Amino acid sequence: MSVPIILDCDPGHDDAVAILLAAGDPAIDLLAITTVAGNQVLEKTTLNARRICTAAGITSVPIAAGCARPLVRELRVADDVHGQSGMDGPSFGEPTVGTVPEHAVDLMYRLLTRHPEPVTLVPTAPLTNIALLLTRYPDAAAHIREIVLMGGSTERGNRTPAAEFNMYVDPEAADIVFRSGLPVTMCGLNVSHQALVTPDVLARLEGLETDLGRICAELMTFFAATYRRLWGFPAPPLHDPVAVARVVDPAIVDCVDASVAVELRGEYTRGATVVDLHRYLGRPVNARVAVRLDQERFWDRVVGAVDTLGRRAGGAAGTGPDVRNGEDRQG
Amino acid sequence: MSVPIILDCDPGHDDAVAILLAAGDPAIDLLAITTVAGNQVLEKTTLNARRICTAAGITSVPIAAGCARPLVRELRVADDVHGQSGMDGPSFGEPTVGTVPEHAVDLMYRLLTRHPEPVTLVPTAPLTNIALLLTRYPDAAAHIREIVLMGGSTERGNRTPAAEFNMYVDPEAADIVFRSGLPVTMCGLNVSHQALVTPDVLARLEGLETDLGRICAELMTFFAATYRRLWGFPAPPLHDPVAVARVVDPAIVDCVDASVAVELRGEYTRGATVVDLHRYLGRPVNARVAVRLDQERFWDRVVGAVDTLGRRAGGAAGTGPDVRNGEDRQG
Amino acid sequence: MSVPIILDCDPGHDDAVAILLAAGDPAIDLLAITTVAGNQVLEKTTLNARRICTAAGITSVPIAAGCARPLVRELRVADDVHGQSGMDGPSFGEPTVGTVPEHAVDLMYRLLTRHPEPVTLVPTAPLTNIALLLTRYPDAAAHIREIVLMGGSTERGNRTPAAEFNMYVDPEAADIVFRSGLPVTMCGLNVSHQALVTPDVLARLEGLETDLGRICAELMTFFAATYRRLWGFPAPPLHDPVAVARVVDPAIVDCVDASVAVELRGEYTRGATVVDLHRYLGRPVNARVAVRLDQERFWDRVVGAVDTLGRRAGGAAGTGPDVRNGEDRQG
Amino acid sequence: MSVPIILDCDPGHDDAVAILLAAGDPAIDLLAITTVAGNQVLEKTTLNARRICTAAGITSVPIAAGCARPLVRELRVADDVHGQSGMDGPSFGEPTVGTVPEHAVDLMYRLLTRHPEPVTLVPTAPLTNIALLLTRYPDAAAHIREIVLMGGSTERGNRTPAAEFNMYVDPEAADIVFRSGLPVTMCGLNVSHQALVTPDVLARLEGLETDLGRICAELMTFFAATYRRLWGFPAPPLHDPVAVARVVDPAIVDCVDASVAVELRGEYTRGATVVDLHRYLGRPVNARVAVRLDQERFWDRVVGAVDTLGRRAGGAAGTGPDVRNGEDRQG
Repeated sequence: MSVPIILDCDPGHDDAVAILLAAGDPAIDLLAITTVAGNQVLEKTTLNARRICTAAGITSVPIAAGCARPLVRELRVADDVHGQSGMDGPSFGEPTVGTVPEHAVDLMYRLLTRHPEPVTLVPTAPLTNIALLLTRYPDAAAHIREIVLMGGSTERGNRTPAAEFNMYVDPEAADIVFRSGLPVTMCGLNVSHQALVTPDVLARLEGLETDLGRICAELMTFFAATYRRLWGFPAPPLHDPVAVARVVDPAIVDCVDASVAVELRGEYTRGATVVDLHRYLGRPVNARVAVRLDQERFWDRVVGAVDTLGRRAGGAAGTGPDVRNGEDRQG
Repeated sequence: MSVPIILDCDPGHDDAVAILLAAGDPAIDLLAITTVAGNQVLEKTTLNARRICTAAGITSVPIAAGCARPLVRELRVADDVHGQSGMDGPSFGEPTVGTVPEHAVDLMYRLLTRHPEPVTLVPTAPLTNIALLLTRYPDAAAHIREIVLMGGSTERGNRTPAAEFNMYVDPEAADIVFRSGLPVTMCGLNVSHQALVTPDVLARLEGLETDLGRICAELMTFFAATYRRLWGFPAPPLHDPVAVARVVDPAIVDCVDASVAVELRGEYTRGATVVDLHRYLGRPVNARVAVRLDQERFWDRVVGAVDTLGRRAGGAAGTGPDVRNGEDRQG
Repeated sequence: MSVPIILDCDPGHDDAVAILLAAGDPAIDLLAITTVAGNQVLEKTTLNARRICTAAGITSVPIAAGCARPLVRELRVADDVHGQSGMDGPSFGEPTVGTVPEHAVDLMYRLLTRHPEPVTLVPTAPLTNIALLLTRYPDAAAHIREIVLMGGSTERGNRTPAAEFNMYVDPEAADIVFRSGLPVTMCGLNVSHQALVTPDVLARLEGLETDLGRICAELMTFFAATYRRLWGFPAPPLHDPVAVARVVDPAIVDCVDASVAVELRGEYTRGATVVDLHRYLGRPVNARVAVRLDQERFWDRVVGAVDTLGRRAGGAAGTGPDVRNGEDRQG
Repeated sequence: MSVPIILDCDPGHDDAVAILLAAGDPAIDLLAITTVAGNQVLEKTTLNARRICTAAGITSVPIAAGCARPLVRELRVADDVHGQSGMDGPSFGEPTVGTVPEHAVDLMYRLLTRHPEPVTLVPTAPLTNIALLLTRYPDAAAHIREIVLMGGSTERGNRTPAAEFNMYVDPEAADIVFRSGLPVTMCGLNVSHQALVTPDVLARLEGLETDLGRICAELMTFFAATYRRLWGFPAPPLHDPVAVARVVDPAIVDCVDASVAVELRGEYTRGATVVDLHRYLGRPVNARVAVRLDQERFWDRVVGAVDTLGRRAGGAAGTGPDVRNGEDRQG
């Protein structure tokens, strides 16, 4: 019984691996990939989603572009982290996988309401699309099983000392999600920083001896250089797949129940996720907050998914047009 | 050459008269009436739009319901001002005019993109629908001639000492509109407080000797009691029709160019419109701000529109089902 | 029975006239003049206090300098309004009146605790000194009869559209004062804008045919040019003397009881005084708020005080050293 | 060459030990102990300072009480952490050590200006007194060598998820200190949580076999119960002595240069210290921020100071009146 999910992302190096885990792990039924502005502008994150899907032979999952900017504030991209393309490192050919001609939010709503069981949303980007979904389609909530997101932190942020990037880019959207009343699981920096791409992990990806394994290794090598330069990390954290891994196998990510508030008004703290881990303030619990990652299981699933997709795609990965997808869905 | 507009409202006593002015004045081509939560919850404001249209015989203008709550914050209604129904005072029968089965924002977008010329939006309510339109359909902007809104103030507010009701209810939506780059005209309390329903005005409405004139007089009588009780006004201000009047004849409402910022962070000032009338701060101009009302011309047009509609509707106003509308549009 | 007051000011054109009214009107017993940074830096406002006292022959009132900057935020002066000297217009000779070698706050405390009856504080400047007094000497409160201040507004501000200058410069100090529990009377822009120095008023000052009358007229002429240029006023408002006038004769300034909150957090509204005139929000009353000025009585007292002092000072005004003051108090 | 310091505190269990370290370690010349409201109201924190000094035989260090409430916001005490007395646990007799009849800030200023060399301020409490010193006596800055404070955090807070207690209680005072331009060293929770009173440490204190050692052990035992109950700590962190230890021997506490901003406006983050450890935002460095504690050296100095004082005080600790102090300084 695989879990039906929609992955909402802004690839992004770690989003790319999140896509691979979601598409390659048998525990998940990936209904759609939706894109949003975040790590880079919408055109680039959408192109990157098409690129990684092309490279991985993911041809039957619809891709739809969503919001090009945050709800209220101006867009700030993370080009210093992800490069000019938003997914610098490997060279990609012209993608053969297209997008569907539907707004991300309309596609989400259509899939949510037509799927026989509630669907899990997995956002690994600013929450603009999710907030717009809940605003435009209030009845969508009844069809959402839970929202398992990568974002926020119980500790320091990365975009500012107080705020993680996804929350910082669209704090109003985050506020809407955390106050939606829906079951929300927050996988923040505190747990994604336990998912370090060590040399050993890199060696496992390279050792897969597939084109896709090599692409992943190149993505991680670029990402490692970024994290070393900006924040002195010995190895880069692979944030986004942690949220997917929580769906793949909840035992991989331990959580605690807590109240989470998003700071909208601060001068230095906009987008901070204020998590009352010890329930000291007595606020109502509105989220499950990830606190610990089972690193061994996590990397086994990630590497396993890359391996599965890489073998399936074979040498032909990304080399030819995907005719069926082109006919059916190209936007 | 009448001006094509979409009226976005939350009736509401003064919204009701705004609808009558927009539907009854030959200078305006009313393409649609859209509703939003504000003075009351969405179900009530939508019902009230149907009621006043039924009473006025406005049967060929589509009505569509939009957002049931503000973008980010919780809804606060104005039941102390407009009563439990949102339009207390007259008794209305079951409305025969229905709604179209389209979300307000989708209807707006469809009309905007299909109309041969740019369309003017006239919001007289919290700006939630307008902000959602701009967020969901970024290309709608190219089809909007201008946004002429009732809301804000260059002076004191009414919902709080700092904030006017429409801005207070959804300040984030207001911020999106004022920073949209579109031509925005703000008709605030400073000018709507020049539109007082004096006994003379009331007498003119009653003197029309139509059912619709009587309904208007009853609405204004209730409104007068509210304004006397809450704020000590000698006569109630008829806010919303001022924005419509600006479109009917720009000469009725004098404006100045100014920068307008919406306060989102204050503890006591959320939703305040900070208008730099004297350009003292040197911020870029982003709005036309109404400063003076030609009261005589204003009341002539308002009373004239009520007269026109009242005579046209005749005694049959609101008494029978509008079959065509029921078939085509009822949601 | 004259009312004992301490005048805390930042001269400033209108502060200068406030000093004259406080020193020249028999209804007031002016115990001290204290200075603070505001319209200009502390050195300049203190020098200006000495200048106007010298010109007016006010030699027996101690002058003490207080805080050189606001409690929390950086100082912003009003050199665009008051000029480089803070009191541009007339030319003043070297002042012969000195200052006492005591910090304003220590002098206030000493006078408050030694005076047989409670003393009224009349601040016409940023409230830094008053806030510091209450912080450093909590028991001073018991000796304060009331605080009658010029600052804030029930309507628009002047330094920003939302905030009056004195409140804007030190909002934290203002917050301390308004939440002190002491009787506070706020004379804001809404009432000081009723104190316009019309050509008629100017003629009366010139008609006094004293040096001091001429100096006042020159101050007002400079001020008029400022207000015409920056905000298009036909005649300049004489803010600060309104607070003194309220003490001189309460009947000159009508007040209503209201809650007043000072906005500390807004992005565009820092320092706004949010006055719930209609008690709509149900917050506790913490101030008397001036709403109407009896202009005739006001100008009679102001011109009368200038006349009294001008005649007393005679031709000798500002021309010779005040030996006693120099010996006893010069800092 | 011992370092002259003034210790500004709100005892408080950990403040008590900070006093002992400052008074008992030969590297420090403790000029004065000043008290402020924080962990408890001013009367209680001052009484507690007298109690611990009496118990430790610290009779020649002047104690002066300062501010009874924060600069701007209402006082919030930490009675859930420190108990009703502010220093629950041991039973203390009537203290024989008194206070001097001077306000803390005046005493600080007098000592600063009379000491032949610049003096280090060590605040381990809300920074109200320090901010008032800088506001009232701007020239004091020239006599301050540095400010080494306990407060803030580079990670989570304790009073709220975002803010450490001392910063939370008086964020405006903290802001004044961090923007003062003086050399500021921040010893926050991130480093004080490395100073855990483990059973081994407790055993060393008990093993001193002095009354003072027993009192310290009782204080720590109470504190341990608090931290276990509220936040699940296995052993309680001894915050305040870390700042003193930094002065005792800088090598005990490693620091990095960073920009520190205090959040004054947030809804959930008031008092958060936003520390840009990686200089990612490019803001100017305004503090040294403690990041690592040499635990072995730290506990050696703390236990050593308690031992020294305990032996010196002997069995007579706290049992008799200190006549000289009583005569000279009791307030």
